[in-house]
Amino acid sequence: MGKNLLVAQSGGPTAAINATLAGVIRMAKEREEIDTVYGGIHGIQGILEERFVNLSELVKDEETMSRLARTPAAALGSCRFKLNDIKEDDSQYRQIVDIFHRHNIGYFIYIGGNDSMDTVAKLSGYCKENGIEDIVVVGGPKTIDNDLCGIDHCPGFGSAAKYIATVFAELEQEMLVYDTKNVIIVEMMGRHAGWLTSAAALAQNRNSNLPYLIYLEERPFSVDRFIADVEEKLKTSNAVMVAVSEGVHDEDGVFICEQISSGKGLDVFGHAQLSGTGKILEDQVSRRIGCKVRSIELSLLQRCAGHILSKTDIEESRTLGSHAVTMAVEGKGGQMSSLRRVSDSPYQVVYEGVDIGKVANLEKKIPQEWINEAGNGVTQDLITYLAPLVEGELCCDYEKGIPCYVKLK
Amino acid sequence: MGKNLLVAQSGGPTAAINATLAGVIRMAKEREEIDTVYGGIHGIQGILEERFVNLSELVKDEETMSRLARTPAAALGSCRFKLNDIKEDDSQYRQIVDIFHRHNIGYFIYIGGNDSMDTVAKLSGYCKENGIEDIVVVGGPKTIDNDLCGIDHCPGFGSAAKYIATVFAELEQEMLVYDTKNVIIVEMMGRHAGWLTSAAALAQNRNSNLPYLIYLEERPFSVDRFIADVEEKLKTSNAVMVAVSEGVHDEDGVFICEQISSGKGLDVFGHAQLSGTGKILEDQVSRRIGCKVRSIELSLLQRCAGHILSKTDIEESRTLGSHAVTMAVEGKGGQMSSLRRVSDSPYQVVYEGVDIGKVANLEKKIPQEWINEAGNGVTQDLITYLAPLVEGELCCDYEKGIPCYVKLK
Repeated sequence: MGKNLLVAQSGGPTAAINATLAGVIRMAKEREEIDTVYGGIHGIQGILEERFVNLSELVKDEETMSRLARTPAAALGSCRFKLNDIKEDDSQYRQIVDIFHRHNIGYFIYIGGNDSMDTVAKLSGYCKENGIEDIVVVGGPKTIDNDLCGIDHCPGFGSAAKYIATVFAELEQEMLVYDTKNVIIVEMMGRHAGWLTSAAALAQNRNSNLPYLIYLEERPFSVDRFIADVEEKLKTSNAVMVAVSEGVHDEDGVFICEQISSGKGLDVFGHAQLSGTGKILEDQVSRRIGCKVRSIELSLLQRCAGHILSKTDIEESRTLGSHAVTMAVEGKGGQMSSLRRVSDSPYQVVYEGVDIGKVANLEKKIPQEWINEAGNGVTQDLITYLAPLVEGELCCDYEKGIPCYVKLK
Repeated sequence: MGKNLLVAQSGGPTAAINATLAGVIRMAKEREEIDTVYGGIHGIQGILEERFVNLSELVKDEETMSRLARTPAAALGSCRFKLNDIKEDDSQYRQIVDIFHRHNIGYFIYIGGNDSMDTVAKLSGYCKENGIEDIVVVGGPKTIDNDLCGIDHCPGFGSAAKYIATVFAELEQEMLVYDTKNVIIVEMMGRHAGWLTSAAALAQNRNSNLPYLIYLEERPFSVDRFIADVEEKLKTSNAVMVAVSEGVHDEDGVFICEQISSGKGLDVFGHAQLSGTGKILEDQVSRRIGCKVRSIELSLLQRCAGHILSKTDIEESRTLGSHAVTMAVEGKGGQMSSLRRVSDSPYQVVYEGVDIGKVANLEKKIPQEWINEAGNGVTQDLITYLAPLVEGELCCDYEKGIPCYVKLK
């Protein structure tokens, strides 16, 4: 008789995390080692409260599976919850193992980003140290930020990148409409890596020759240099497209947006909540250049756009979920399901496992050599890296003109 | 021998104004009364400078025509330019007629909103008063604001409404992810009418039962009442969806966003540039309720989203363009191409002309009886009105994962 599999989601939502969930469910149904697939509601926090749903029942047919894969956010709910330090207090770990044993859960797939991989590392470490061999913990990657180590690129990033490039392609059309000097500033998410912002470059030179200025947090940002850049571009073009990471900061590491106090403090993992960079730069352009300027903060829209998904991203995300199940059944605990790029053209990846220690709590930044010398644009190498990730289109189903999503809780 | 037709675009861009342009070009090619189709660059302002392109040459094949219909913004460029008062100075009018005569232009279609219809009214009035019978001026409607009189609904509005409802459907998924009290505030465009904001209602009760609060500028807005509304909804739900018009104002007509000085003055038609309503309300929720809250300003994204168009809107917009040509050829100057709804279910419209005097410089607001008593939601009548306008999906073409648009200038 087989064991049950538990899957849960954690961290910030993405447009592809449910595709990975769908991949987990599909493969778990195929493997005879696995009986029932349970979903943990609200991540590890809900698991501690035994908040489970029966996914074998809820996701029965191919239509629901396919629709789930195109439902944004996290259908099982999520959490931002850090397990206690084992050395200080191992009661949460004992509780989780107890719950798993009571529900005959032999496989646990935790889908999340670098913070969530910390949970996978701790929990699988606890099992190993305590000789608990009947529970295999495997990580499933996701993050729009694309900042996970141990993987070529992150599930969810491709769809977010496609959304961002699409927005830039559309805003170009807007910018071409009027016959006056015009600057648009779009602020992208990304705490400590500029990957999302760099996706703007995919729209450049596709529908127009409008100049782009792209500021990534991997380079110190200077407001004066920014203003000089904009002035320079306005000499030869009526319109300038600006892409900026929320987390750009000066030489001393002080965020531009810290110039205004947000009053919102820190979230539980110790990251400052950032916002306002675009507005500050808009204000600067307005005051110092005096031309028409508008800033747009893409905010949550960039990570939940189920109506425009990268086909490549969704398919890879599903496969990574399926691969996580295969890894679990093969006893590869303490690893994350991952993919490695073997070729840019034709684009090809292989699926593999990576040791969770190479992922948890680490961040992958854009290599300095992929940023231009002036620090206001990207190189062809970065575009070559990004291009295949946004290939192909998928979207949600619509009913009477409105997106239609799968509900699991 | 036939005459030439000139078409131009004016006012704020929409996702459907090029569909109307495509409709004009198609019908103009079919009518033997018409020789060449010219496009005026940057509206009436560019026409005064004789900035024309040959659309008969530029839009030759069906593929370009179809792609143009799905290209957002205004492919001919636009302007915000008010013709002088004829009584004070008729030199612009004489100049335009002279230019038209020199280029053998017998038909002029001007696609725009209420301000642009002012141009149509003035120009056709000038022709009539001066016995100029060889120039027919017809208006083509467009505006995402849906505030044109003399038409059931405006081309461009359906696509913007679909985009907004889609955003709300997606944000619902985001809001369901965490297990904490959560408020999201989305600010929509619309200077003096709440139509765009009301489109949020189309997403309500479709994928979840999350409560919505919808504030339209047709009702006086009170920050205190807003806070009380949010508190009330939070009693029974973890998450509250808020839709608010940029132009909500208090009993005295003072815009909420006037609490912060934008320092940007007025645009040439005398409308104040509005922004910041959502941020102000976010700040109020944060201070007075203290729960997690985020505001999103949809800004330009809601009017240029070529990647998610209402099929109904695009098809109607094309037909309105074609119908404008038919009207012009039939000598129906001083009118706007319009549509009238004859049935909600099945949804059916008929195309007709309306006197431009019934459109120019007027604004259509949401009827008070379509807003609920509390002023924080809409009635079923409004939803019945909106629902067919977002039916069906169309999107831009993609090349290598990026939207691909038509360039005409």
